Amino acid sequence: MIEVIDILGTIAFTISGVLVALHKRMDLFGIIIIGFVTAVGGGTIRDLLIGFTPVTWMQQPRIVYIVLLTSIFALIFRKRLDYLRTSLFLFDTIGIGLYTVIGLQKGIQAELHPVICIALGTITACFGGVLRDILCNEIPVIFRKEIYATACILGGLTYFVLYKLNLDESLLFLVSGIVVILVRLLAVKFKISLPKLYQE
Amino acid sequence: MIEVIDILGTIAFTISGVLVALHKRMDLFGIIIIGFVTAVGGGTIRDLLIGFTPVTWMQQPRIVYIVLLTSIFALIFRKRLDYLRTSLFLFDTIGIGLYTVIGLQKGIQAELHPVICIALGTITACFGGVLRDILCNEIPVIFRKEIYATACILGGLTYFVLYKLNLDESLLFLVSGIVVILVRLLAVKFKISLPKLYQE
Amino acid sequence: MIEVIDILGTIAFTISGVLVALHKRMDLFGIIIIGFVTAVGGGTIRDLLIGFTPVTWMQQPRIVYIVLLTSIFALIFRKRLDYLRTSLFLFDTIGIGLYTVIGLQKGIQAELHPVICIALGTITACFGGVLRDILCNEIPVIFRKEIYATACILGGLTYFVLYKLNLDESLLFLVSGIVVILVRLLAVKFKISLPKLYQE
Repeated sequence: MIEVIDILGTIAFTISGVLVALHKRMDLFGIIIIGFVTAVGGGTIRDLLIGFTPVTWMQQPRIVYIVLLTSIFALIFRKRLDYLRTSLFLFDTIGIGLYTVIGLQKGIQAELHPVICIALGTITACFGGVLRDILCNEIPVIFRKEIYATACILGGLTYFVLYKLNLDESLLFLVSGIVVILVRLLAVKFKISLPKLYQE
Repeated sequence: MIEVIDILGTIAFTISGVLVALHKRMDLFGIIIIGFVTAVGGGTIRDLLIGFTPVTWMQQPRIVYIVLLTSIFALIFRKRLDYLRTSLFLFDTIGIGLYTVIGLQKGIQAELHPVICIALGTITACFGGVLRDILCNEIPVIFRKEIYATACILGGLTYFVLYKLNLDESLLFLVSGIVVILVRLLAVKFKISLPKLYQE
Repeated sequence: MIEVIDILGTIAFTISGVLVALHKRMDLFGIIIIGFVTAVGGGTIRDLLIGFTPVTWMQQPRIVYIVLLTSIFALIFRKRLDYLRTSLFLFDTIGIGLYTVIGLQKGIQAELHPVICIALGTITACFGGVLRDILCNEIPVIFRKEIYATACILGGLTYFVLYKLNLDESLLFLVSGIVVILVRLLAVKFKISLPKLYQE
């Protein structure tokens, strides 16, 4: 089950990278690299920061093939991806929930402070997109229009608040992931975003 | 004493990040991340390059709170930060001196070559600002208008020149840090900067 | 022999960085840093991903001096570098061949999957240029106009295809490096590049 979510999340992240790269008129190599970085970049930054090397994707070559196939699929059907918009959004959202939980877990395994674990969850879920935007020479969209970082942070907080109830750990992770997903769905539905702070 | 300087330096670096992020019309999440990256980015790159993981800030969650509080303070008083300009410049300058020395020390502990230790000191002091500018989609200001990299390099050279005099190590670090601070103060006072090399 | 190629490659990569930095009107510090990052950036990313720290250049301070001398040479003779264009292109090309092979080797030593080893070879050869372009606030040229990534990938494939023939390992590396060099020379000669995929 977790494997399936992981693969769906990877596919959704890859396609988001491919679309940005196409928009930037990159060639085939650039498009695949941007898809790859979007999919694995957050986990890679997390792994580097905690010293988990070789980083996860180097130990799971499967992910390279998933990104390759997804990129080619996205290129062939790029004019029809719009039909998949709702599915992709859902994959993306549950992917974010899963990635947040994986980041949390890694931080807890490394016995880091809760606030650092929450940061690791958020980095895992959000920083693939940050790297994608930097490589595409854009200010990371997540810094301008809050999309899901707050959802990741709330999911992480949920874990540590519930932790005191002595619940089973996998239940904690499940609930935290669901909080991420729900907050994001609600935020998108009701168009909630963080305040912009710049005033002319 | 060193802790106080470290905190003042963190505050000054965070505020410099917040101001750039505000100027780029980021939202609250973006502003805090840019503040954080500016404050801890140099030390993080240093830690990654020498393989010191989990990186320093993950072992000092205190710094997360300092950055959060500073960012919120800076946002609330953003129209009055000008009154603090001189204090912030001083905090920033002594912060740079301290960060250079910390980087030097880490390199020496890892038994690296002097030229690499000097590079580590300079990276610690300067590359938070480089990351800030990359995330804000700007060419790093330090690559265009020399601000303080030369001061860091001279401070590092001082350490290794004086090393031969068999002085106490903490005295060496103190003198090196003071050289960084003095060179920067003098450079700003007399508007000294490196030559630009491009000619039409 | 390998040392000579390594030095020639470093020189060619540094000069490519210096030229881009000059074009961006950087000052002396910026120019040297961009030269340095172009020369060692690919190997540094590779080392970080596989957890080989302190990264290679920190253990070979020689490279710092080579980059410094090359940058100063390139600055002094910047108006006459055009005469060296053919030599620089050749140094660059054999440097890419060597870097690909070094990356392959490191992956094989770390017992990583072939597809990951090929990625490491390509990263070693190509990502110094990617970092250079990011620091100069450009979309990496290699993502828009395929220049040599395909050559690196083909060289890596060659290694693993020939591996089954039970040849001597150093012969395998030699042939793989030569494939990289030949593919690039032919691609440039016949102006072959990957298709652009964006259509209005």
